[in-house]
Amino acid sequence: MREAVVAAFKDIQNAICLGLENEDGLAKFQSDLWARPGGGGGDTRVIQDGAVFEKGGVNFSEVFGELPQAMANEFQVKSREFFATGVSIVIHPKSPMVPIVHMNIRYFEMPEEGLAWFGGGIDLTPIYVNEQQGKQFHQTLKSVCDKHSEGYYPQFKDWADTYFYIKHRKETRGIGGVFFDKLVANDTFTLEQRFDFVKDVGNSFLTAYLPIVNENKLLPYVEAQQQWQMIRRGRYVEFNLVYDRGTHFGLQTDGRIESILMSLPTTAGWHYNHEPASGSPEEKSLRFFQTKMDWVREN
Amino acid sequence: MREAVVAAFKDIQNAICLGLENEDGLAKFQSDLWARPGGGGGDTRVIQDGAVFEKGGVNFSEVFGELPQAMANEFQVKSREFFATGVSIVIHPKSPMVPIVHMNIRYFEMPEEGLAWFGGGIDLTPIYVNEQQGKQFHQTLKSVCDKHSEGYYPQFKDWADTYFYIKHRKETRGIGGVFFDKLVANDTFTLEQRFDFVKDVGNSFLTAYLPIVNENKLLPYVEAQQQWQMIRRGRYVEFNLVYDRGTHFGLQTDGRIESILMSLPTTAGWHYNHEPASGSPEEKSLRFFQTKMDWVREN
Repeated sequence: MREAVVAAFKDIQNAICLGLENEDGLAKFQSDLWARPGGGGGDTRVIQDGAVFEKGGVNFSEVFGELPQAMANEFQVKSREFFATGVSIVIHPKSPMVPIVHMNIRYFEMPEEGLAWFGGGIDLTPIYVNEQQGKQFHQTLKSVCDKHSEGYYPQFKDWADTYFYIKHRKETRGIGGVFFDKLVANDTFTLEQRFDFVKDVGNSFLTAYLPIVNENKLLPYVEAQQQWQMIRRGRYVEFNLVYDRGTHFGLQTDGRIESILMSLPTTAGWHYNHEPASGSPEEKSLRFFQTKMDWVREN
Repeated sequence: MREAVVAAFKDIQNAICLGLENEDGLAKFQSDLWARPGGGGGDTRVIQDGAVFEKGGVNFSEVFGELPQAMANEFQVKSREFFATGVSIVIHPKSPMVPIVHMNIRYFEMPEEGLAWFGGGIDLTPIYVNEQQGKQFHQTLKSVCDKHSEGYYPQFKDWADTYFYIKHRKETRGIGGVFFDKLVANDTFTLEQRFDFVKDVGNSFLTAYLPIVNENKLLPYVEAQQQWQMIRRGRYVEFNLVYDRGTHFGLQTDGRIESILMSLPTTAGWHYNHEPASGSPEEKSLRFFQTKMDWVREN
């Protein structure tokens, strides 16, 4: 299974980098190969100062060795031997009209414990929420989920709403998407079926994201909109440093710091007590982050 | 003791606000009084868009009620009744030539458990390290400590080096200062003596910080220096969101979020794999954050 997952994940990384470069039209991904002292390593691909993408990473990693004792305790396992591989993406566009996007797919194994599972997720963080695009984004994710199980989308959409939540702000970081973890083999699904699902999630990234980028990338914007972008990026930083499990896993397992924190934007900002003006587009967007939305409701 | 501490802390807050306003010459602190649903409240004083200070807070709070169960477990106490009061300061100057500064003094009580202690700290975060000013800053703190105990400065300086450390970057956030916690009454010190020390720390803030501000505030700077400032501010954000105990205490006890996160700068930035040019002033400053320094050594 390990070799098959690694090969599929590398293919997904390559395809996504190509798709994003093509959409950007100017910048290219730079690759940094790195080795982890405890075992394994990765291929960090970063795009910077593009026509569309200000800063983004599409990172592959494959790490193994011994879990830190604290994490082994948390997992309630005796053996500490682990293997983990994944693709992690965060893209910060230049324009406030183009949403930030995140995707992660991952496979985790503790061979001595007989444990193996898949996890992942995609979520969209528009600075200004476009309802039509929100529906379209969620519909794409629902279609991918429905191919594998009718139960997946409702469950994983709710999980995303719960996970991508900035508790101390009482707001989500964006309009959500799907999130899932510890998808093990069970009576309903084999591990291969879980793998097929996760591959499809990875392969849906460009389909879900690029049409929105393409529609919005040439929209004009003004400085006040960039100010709002700085504030929403600030919230993104808060989520990633306070709550993101991937970030914490990376920091705790001594991952490569520049690969983990490539998720942070070139610029972000915090203004004391900032509140968007009543009735403004900023306030309207904020309401979406404070309200539970059913994006694919039929009526 | 509670009333005396509250009165002294409010006096310290007032004196510091006046001193900073006077140094700024343009902006004034705005006061926001707030109440905490679980008990208590505070007086958040924020200065913004000054001639010298871009964003800063000098906050007083006095909160009480029941600790969250998770914290009570961590403290290994049965009763959850607590009282906490403190003054917390973070100042982000506009110019990269003027250091960021932080101070905190606090008093914590669990009356049912018979627990009472003081804590606090001051630390300086220059964007560009000026050795002479670093020595002067530490010398001021040492003089305050020495008045109360010869053991204080060496112990609390080391504690600051350990505490104000960005583990995942393997660097300190600045040039340190002093940090201390759980100063209880014991065979050597009464609680009143601990209180006297903490008051002196609070009263030394302006003496330690303002001469440096005054010396540097009119120095010219260029855009490249502001870029380095953005990066160092990004590190400040990393420390505050990942490691700062005051931030975590505030988030866990449902404190007022804008008062807790006033410590974050108006702008900050992250550049993938940024490394200062060899031999540059930026690299020289970075070395200070990667090296254990003895700032008050005689020779």
